[in-house]
Amino acid sequence: MNFSSSLIEKAVESFSTLPGIGKKSALRMVLHLIKQDPEQVQKFAHNLVNLRMNIKACQVCHNLSDAELCQICLDSSRNRMIICLVESIRDVMAIEETGQFSGVYHVIGGILSPIDGVGPEQLNIDSLLERVQKNQVKEVIMAINPTIEGETTIFYLSKRLQKFGIKVSTLARGVAFGSELEYADEITLARSIQTRMPYNAVE
Amino acid sequence: MNFSSSLIEKAVESFSTLPGIGKKSALRMVLHLIKQDPEQVQKFAHNLVNLRMNIKACQVCHNLSDAELCQICLDSSRNRMIICLVESIRDVMAIEETGQFSGVYHVIGGILSPIDGVGPEQLNIDSLLERVQKNQVKEVIMAINPTIEGETTIFYLSKRLQKFGIKVSTLARGVAFGSELEYADEITLARSIQTRMPYNAVE
Repeated sequence: MNFSSSLIEKAVESFSTLPGIGKKSALRMVLHLIKQDPEQVQKFAHNLVNLRMNIKACQVCHNLSDAELCQICLDSSRNRMIICLVESIRDVMAIEETGQFSGVYHVIGGILSPIDGVGPEQLNIDSLLERVQKNQVKEVIMAINPTIEGETTIFYLSKRLQKFGIKVSTLARGVAFGSELEYADEITLARSIQTRMPYNAVE
Repeated sequence: MNFSSSLIEKAVESFSTLPGIGKKSALRMVLHLIKQDPEQVQKFAHNLVNLRMNIKACQVCHNLSDAELCQICLDSSRNRMIICLVESIRDVMAIEETGQFSGVYHVIGGILSPIDGVGPEQLNIDSLLERVQKNQVKEVIMAINPTIEGETTIFYLSKRLQKFGIKVSTLARGVAFGSELEYADEITLARSIQTRMPYNAVE
């Protein structure tokens, strides 16, 4: 595209480095910013730089945080004996959104994938084992995506956690609420029959 | 969404002010930026602020520009006697992309729309009339979107330009290349029969 302005060109180039943004969307954003108050654009820029310079990984759970410890690890009302193991901070947000979990997290930062060069040493596993050993952890919930690599990671971690004699659980698998059986994939449907649950009618 | 970090929250809020970006896409961008080099994020921020602070409207054609005059108005090889009238700088880019126009532009900055409070005084019309009068302009091409407001704007401008005795043209209307007749709308199809063109076989 011919922008006839190097200022516009540079800003469009910057925006197009973002995931899912092409040149046309980038231009739309740039033309939007040009119409905003200068102070607002400066605030925008400040927020980005401030984020990059000051964001930290929580020293306990590796969640992204403003300080040395994240708000969840600092919250004294949370149960430190139950650790929910997740791949990334997006999963922390998704689970927090449900409001159904009052334990703490451990972000391992990925899943085992030899093809992408991700082995156990690339993940935050040592710090997990240390946490389990030092604190009186009773249960580790593996909230990891049920893909082939995810299942491998769960299997590997459960072996490493075996020696501590703690409870290891995974998220329940089955047919999603509101979905239709005929469109569920075969593996999910087959497993949900094998692992069927007793029905308790709520009175 | 619970971001458990005010740094992330502020950056997500900033990105969600952009057109077409919701909280989830904004978060995706923020997590992407966190992984980048600090210098790259600083450059990103600098490009945005620099754009907003230094972008100008070309004093002749109102195109966005780095300097007082835009690159197109400065280019001595362009024919100043043919002015292409467009609504916004996006249209300048679209026409420049075709490489088929060697005249100059005039960005009027919108179209007449009484319902949105846009009258002739809100548009760059006086500067157009001045340009036509001062320079030896021979033709004004109305490259305005063929909507009802667009047609009204073309009609109004052609009346204002009448006294200068210059040629006023609009973009050709008709069935688009590569489209199928059965899906063309009735008005376009009807007009393209009325304004049919002699066929010159290219030998």
